[in-house]
Amino acid sequence: MLALYVAIACGGLALIYGAWARGSILGASPGTPRMQEIAGAIQEGASAYLNRQYRTIAIVGVIVAAVLAPTLGLYAAIGFVIGALLSGLAGYIGMLVSVRANVRTTEAARSSLQRGLDIAFRAGAMTGLLVAGLALLSVAVYYWLLTGPLGYAANDRTVINALVSLGFGGSLISIFARLGGGIFTKGADVGADLVGKIEAGIPEDDPRNPAVIADNVGDNVGDCAGMAADLFETYVVTMGATMVLSALFVGAEAEALMVLPLAIGGVCLVASIIGTFFVKLTRDANIMGALYRGFLISACVSVFGLVAAIWIALPGGYAYEFTVGTETYTGFSLFFCGLIGLVVTGLIIWITEYYTGTGKRPVSSIAKASETGHATNIIQGLAISLESTALPALVICAGIIGAYELAGVIGLGFAATTMLALAGMVVALDAYGPVTDNAGGIAEMAELEADVRERTDALDAVGNTTKAVTKGYAIGSAGLAALVLFGAYKADLDLYFADLAVSFELTNPYVVVGLFIGALLPYLFGAMGMTAVGRAGGAVVEEVRQQFRDKPGIMKGTEKPDYAKSVDLLTRTAIREMVVPSLLPVLAPLALYFAIYGVAGQGQAFAALGALLLGVIVSGLYVAISMTAGGGAWDNAKKYIEDGNHGGKGSEAHKAAITGDTVGDPYKDTAGPAVNPMIKITNIVALLLLAGLAGGH
Amino acid sequence: MLALYVAIACGGLALIYGAWARGSILGASPGTPRMQEIAGAIQEGASAYLNRQYRTIAIVGVIVAAVLAPTLGLYAAIGFVIGALLSGLAGYIGMLVSVRANVRTTEAARSSLQRGLDIAFRAGAMTGLLVAGLALLSVAVYYWLLTGPLGYAANDRTVINALVSLGFGGSLISIFARLGGGIFTKGADVGADLVGKIEAGIPEDDPRNPAVIADNVGDNVGDCAGMAADLFETYVVTMGATMVLSALFVGAEAEALMVLPLAIGGVCLVASIIGTFFVKLTRDANIMGALYRGFLISACVSVFGLVAAIWIALPGGYAYEFTVGTETYTGFSLFFCGLIGLVVTGLIIWITEYYTGTGKRPVSSIAKASETGHATNIIQGLAISLESTALPALVICAGIIGAYELAGVIGLGFAATTMLALAGMVVALDAYGPVTDNAGGIAEMAELEADVRERTDALDAVGNTTKAVTKGYAIGSAGLAALVLFGAYKADLDLYFADLAVSFELTNPYVVVGLFIGALLPYLFGAMGMTAVGRAGGAVVEEVRQQFRDKPGIMKGTEKPDYAKSVDLLTRTAIREMVVPSLLPVLAPLALYFAIYGVAGQGQAFAALGALLLGVIVSGLYVAISMTAGGGAWDNAKKYIEDGNHGGKGSEAHKAAITGDTVGDPYKDTAGPAVNPMIKITNIVALLLLAGLAGGH
Repeated sequence: MLALYVAIACGGLALIYGAWARGSILGASPGTPRMQEIAGAIQEGASAYLNRQYRTIAIVGVIVAAVLAPTLGLYAAIGFVIGALLSGLAGYIGMLVSVRANVRTTEAARSSLQRGLDIAFRAGAMTGLLVAGLALLSVAVYYWLLTGPLGYAANDRTVINALVSLGFGGSLISIFARLGGGIFTKGADVGADLVGKIEAGIPEDDPRNPAVIADNVGDNVGDCAGMAADLFETYVVTMGATMVLSALFVGAEAEALMVLPLAIGGVCLVASIIGTFFVKLTRDANIMGALYRGFLISACVSVFGLVAAIWIALPGGYAYEFTVGTETYTGFSLFFCGLIGLVVTGLIIWITEYYTGTGKRPVSSIAKASETGHATNIIQGLAISLESTALPALVICAGIIGAYELAGVIGLGFAATTMLALAGMVVALDAYGPVTDNAGGIAEMAELEADVRERTDALDAVGNTTKAVTKGYAIGSAGLAALVLFGAYKADLDLYFADLAVSFELTNPYVVVGLFIGALLPYLFGAMGMTAVGRAGGAVVEEVRQQFRDKPGIMKGTEKPDYAKSVDLLTRTAIREMVVPSLLPVLAPLALYFAIYGVAGQGQAFAALGALLLGVIVSGLYVAISMTAGGGAWDNAKKYIEDGNHGGKGSEAHKAAITGDTVGDPYKDTAGPAVNPMIKITNIVALLLLAGLAGGH
Repeated sequence: MLALYVAIACGGLALIYGAWARGSILGASPGTPRMQEIAGAIQEGASAYLNRQYRTIAIVGVIVAAVLAPTLGLYAAIGFVIGALLSGLAGYIGMLVSVRANVRTTEAARSSLQRGLDIAFRAGAMTGLLVAGLALLSVAVYYWLLTGPLGYAANDRTVINALVSLGFGGSLISIFARLGGGIFTKGADVGADLVGKIEAGIPEDDPRNPAVIADNVGDNVGDCAGMAADLFETYVVTMGATMVLSALFVGAEAEALMVLPLAIGGVCLVASIIGTFFVKLTRDANIMGALYRGFLISACVSVFGLVAAIWIALPGGYAYEFTVGTETYTGFSLFFCGLIGLVVTGLIIWITEYYTGTGKRPVSSIAKASETGHATNIIQGLAISLESTALPALVICAGIIGAYELAGVIGLGFAATTMLALAGMVVALDAYGPVTDNAGGIAEMAELEADVRERTDALDAVGNTTKAVTKGYAIGSAGLAALVLFGAYKADLDLYFADLAVSFELTNPYVVVGLFIGALLPYLFGAMGMTAVGRAGGAVVEEVRQQFRDKPGIMKGTEKPDYAKSVDLLTRTAIREMVVPSLLPVLAPLALYFAIYGVAGQGQAFAALGALLLGVIVSGLYVAISMTAGGGAWDNAKKYIEDGNHGGKGSEAHKAAITGDTVGDPYKDTAGPAVNPMIKITNIVALLLLAGLAGGH
């Protein structure tokens, strides 16, 4: 059990780091009373939104828990509640940190770029380590409780169902948070831009825009809270899936293997903490360089951590042997699978950086295409978004083959686990973005000196790329995790329904239909997300126009706009719009199962359902990567033009680039990233359905 | 052999109809000398382009034929040459008809809408029936030659390889034609619009625009010639695949089953001819209604034709029995599979009409979203394009299940065959579009009375929807045909490489990798197509700007622009840009096979290759439908605004709608439709690779 205690201790260390970072952020000056007033309004709006969002989600959560308790047992229901509550908490923490760090970053940026980076990155790191720490602790402590004090065997059904349910709780909450937050933030962004920048001709973040506070609230509830809930989910599901797979394939002796993912998560958390201390500007003031240095150090330290984790968790370390079917693998193979996870992470970050970073061909080509107008900007952006899927897909395929050749489907699990073990650092890079975005907004609204805005803009530009990077990372890991979940589904099927002899052969037409329906889900889900943002943005436009009409003093600066009204409007719209698409991945697998059951019986229903799981990941990977990378490239093409290229601010090229950026917004921040939890939910619902049906079999 | 002679006779009838229609079109007045001059320039440009395009393709064709002859035998190479030549001929005919009918339609529209519709639709019908007739004859006559005079058994390997190679010839030429024509037409369209409508502020088809002739040439070489080659390919491959499948699964007694697809094709050709005579305007002047009446009559007559074909081709008719593995099916089941094909065709047309037709929610929502700017137009258009995939996918899934339950994988083949048997009528609806588009352009350039342009515009608006309909139909049938080809691949594998025991289980990681790589191809291909159009459009913009600078008299109307220069520029660009993407589906299956062979041996290489075939169709179906339906919706949203809604022509909403239309252009006319031949080529290359390897096994 030493490895389990190490994992729990490392999780505790992450919480301590969080507490320390919180103190160090809150200790910084919050700036002038005007800055504090603005930040207060953002805080208030963000809290109000999250409270209502989580109240709504709680209703769904209670219903699901009430269904789980009688069908899969009390511990499954408790696992679901733990996952749901902690996913919500992760989101909450992300938001709470961010709304306090934003104004302090603005204030720090008044003295220097380095101090601004310090506060903003520390806020990101705090969110990142708390998310990863809470995720690790939730799985590790619940597992300890079940196998220790409660005395269940590691591979007992109760433990397996509890772990799967814990993942389900995290995923279900996170899809609501990703989608609700995404609709809020992009509805606000699109609406504010359309009516402010384009109709009224006032700059971004101008305090005369009645939607400006809502826009800043959105950064916190979408990019921060939504993202934190999402990565919590990704972490918990991946760890849990690898543990479940070990239990299913290796059987009673799986205990050491089941603890290994937790140990890897623990040591890599420590590696992430170490990495955060290396994020410092060098003389050339290269912000991206500073962030990547932190990441690289984390990754390198993680290699040593991986070695340590294997020695602690597996009896005999590298020499440890385990058998799956007729194949025997060793601890040494798992070490290389872990390395594959690290390499895949590094490559995906590098590729995403290429496709979304300023100064590279993709972004430059979109900026250049903006010269000939809105349409060519969009055509080139769409072309880049389609193209950006190729290299990540090849990397993931290579990773699949490598891990599988080393240690079968369990190897895939460990590659995915090690990928996710770096989540603390990756989330840190991401959560830093919205803080600097807000900091810039506050600088603008508080009418601070121009060089403050310049510094926050420099910090923010990097944030666009790091945000795209996290999404590529999350969806890439989802690709591996979904295969692990599919492996668990297949194993469960063989266990409970061996008599059905379900065939997953591609020659089975129900498998083909399952693939088609699975592939459809990301498209339908994307359509719903995009439409929701369009509707929310339209509502904001109407509201702001109304305010401009009713209060003619707003534009002259003699009257204050009613910020709270647009926040409230978006709160209602986002919560209403998030429900139906979020339920799609929950209900679609059930609908397909029962439809095919009616037509062709249970065996084919399970075959179609299994194929649906693969269809959704095969199609979802491309939809998600194309949306998130394409959106990031559009955003940075606009920033590149604003830096004075192709005519600079106010030119026709700039207008076209704003159009591209606005189109990219719901692509990269609403529909695209929500595909990641969607994939996992589909898989988990299938697993739970199977477990539920097995009870009555 | 009666059924075979019936099929050949029906094919001959289609050629006779074509000759009659040609005479009736050429007999109509070609209008004023000015109109003839313009039409002459378009004719000249279109011929020049197609000649160069086919010269380039010929090089590829000769290389492929030289590879096929020694590896798969002389008759395979001859089959390839027949498919390639006739596919080229189909494209040529499409173009030749269209460039003569356009000016005659303009002239006819001067007297009445009905007369304009008569000429334009007769031109479409002539193209449609010649394409379907040539396709049917090529398969039927070559099959007759091989099994009759040359004495091969129906299921002899020589016959099978010859049929597959014939399909390959058609597909390979058609992807070049679709893509080359698509790049030409949309490069011209995008370029002419950007520099004409937006920069110079002159209307569409204004004779002062130096790219205006190129734009009209593009309609003929892309929408007409490219489409005709594409549908020729779809027809030949689907018929051929169903025949090959029958030969592989049913064995020596397959002869009757192998002739049935040809008989169905024959009777449905006659049904299409009958349908064309019912395309007449009623008193409410509903053009779409007139076209659909023709289609519905064809479909209803086809049901009787289907009955007749089964009685003629199968000994015993409905009672005919055949065995696949352990299952026995009857002629009666095949009749119902054929009905499924007709119903799927009808539903796909109905759904596409809903998503792209003016006055329905999707188009209206895009038009409404244009009010708030370019970005919301694009966001809503993208949302619609994603959404539009859902219902067609469900219809195709239902069709797969129905056909499979009735008659296994052979049932799928017959459903696809009957779907394609209506190609004559469907192509007629489509080919009518570019003729009217050109007619409007000629009316504008020849400065005819305003009501002529109004009439051609009314004809053209309907053309947008019928064009989208054909593409939905082609890709839907490709979905079924690809499954048939996959079935053939699996059967061949079992025949030649039974010792490898290739597993297509979804739990095999090489199957998963194959699915991922297959799913990637449409994305990469789409990216290349979009980028090529962007580059071609950019080149046109530069060229036109140059001409405006060098000849300041052009805008005043005192100097004539050099139309030929932009035609020549686009010819070179399109031919250069079409080569690499067209080779992607030829080389990707080979690359995957050899890569996996190196890593994991031949068995896994075949597994990955098979999965690639399914991956490309699962992903390609969605990419293609979303692109073609989305593009059609954008186009008609613009037309709806131009009819005076949301502010009408010249309003801000109109400008936003033009942006959407321009973005939709390469979506719907270049990248989207070329996915259809791409899917088939991937499948056929895999089949040929297998046949080639089997020789040395």
